[in-house]
Amino acid sequence: MPTCISIDVDGQGLHDITDAVRAELRGQGPDDGVCHLFIQHTSASLLVQENYDPSARHDLERWMNRLVPENDPLYTHTAEGPDDMPAHIKASLTATSLAIPVMDGQLALGTWQGVFLWEHRHYRGRRNVIVHVSA
Amino acid sequence: MPTCISIDVDGQGLHDITDAVRAELRGQGPDDGVCHLFIQHTSASLLVQENYDPSARHDLERWMNRLVPENDPLYTHTAEGPDDMPAHIKASLTATSLAIPVMDGQLALGTWQGVFLWEHRHYRGRRNVIVHVSA
Amino acid sequence: MPTCISIDVDGQGLHDITDAVRAELRGQGPDDGVCHLFIQHTSASLLVQENYDPSARHDLERWMNRLVPENDPLYTHTAEGPDDMPAHIKASLTATSLAIPVMDGQLALGTWQGVFLWEHRHYRGRRNVIVHVSA
Repeated sequence: MPTCISIDVDGQGLHDITDAVRAELRGQGPDDGVCHLFIQHTSASLLVQENYDPSARHDLERWMNRLVPENDPLYTHTAEGPDDMPAHIKASLTATSLAIPVMDGQLALGTWQGVFLWEHRHYRGRRNVIVHVSA
Repeated sequence: MPTCISIDVDGQGLHDITDAVRAELRGQGPDDGVCHLFIQHTSASLLVQENYDPSARHDLERWMNRLVPENDPLYTHTAEGPDDMPAHIKASLTATSLAIPVMDGQLALGTWQGVFLWEHRHYRGRRNVIVHVSA
Repeated sequence: MPTCISIDVDGQGLHDITDAVRAELRGQGPDDGVCHLFIQHTSASLLVQENYDPSARHDLERWMNRLVPENDPLYTHTAEGPDDMPAHIKASLTATSLAIPVMDGQLALGTWQGVFLWEHRHYRGRRNVIVHVSA
């Protein structure tokens, strides 16, 4: 049965949720299958990326902020602040749902892979990720 | 068992398919699991985005059309018209498959989330989305 | 149970893995469900795209290389070579996991769809894709 994990975010950036997903996995069978993740927001997204060198994540964020800057005169959807429309665009370019294989009860991630929640707004608060393991 | 829903599109843009997916869900068990969506096309894609304020979707489309314009001199794949190659690129930057959790027989979408078929061509016709619910 | 297929890549580009996925499917039941694919790398990704006209894939790669060039002065993560940071960005803009419906034991791809491993580095070697079919 799908369960919800709440992730506290403290502003824009990549938040490593690998351990939170692993902890949720322990409560759910089966030992082999697929772990589905779904983020219930439209201005944050999910990403599997390099978990080793922080400079790769740093560059990724700066690159994305340059591609999708705030205060672009194209935007008409500005009532919720200058960070809102860029956040919707960044979320659309990345993933709302992810599926990671589970083998012997463990996430079958590659050596350098971590699971991240990518907060696209200057937001402090909670984000919900739904976790479900299918056989 | 996977079933197919046909969506009538009347040109480029985001078409809300949330109700069509919900209707399909009623015919399929189980009550808890994941609803898989897959679009059988390479110039249209799937997106979960803000369903409340149309200006967010409007800006998203205009932003994407500016990032991937028609008639870019880079394109060599032009035999199918000026909207074809941009459509393939936009589809590659967004999702071909999505998985939305199902809880108590309902799509577990966030408050502001809707499910959209993003038609990237100036196309009027039908697009096929395959729906399957896994336990 | 998830299994792993190894794909030999000979440098940057789209490698058609449709037949390799189909071959793996034969060894796994059930006849109806979803075939999950997951790539265990952060500088290569998965894509469903046009499999007919090679010019579409050629343009897609050239467009992406222009959007995310090597030697961008923004990059600080440069220790692993000029192709490394662009590869992480391209992988983040495309898919790490995909789910393709299975009907009557066959991948329910659209007429023009193929499944590709997109190698983003100038890399010759093996990439791992995990395959799992859920009912």
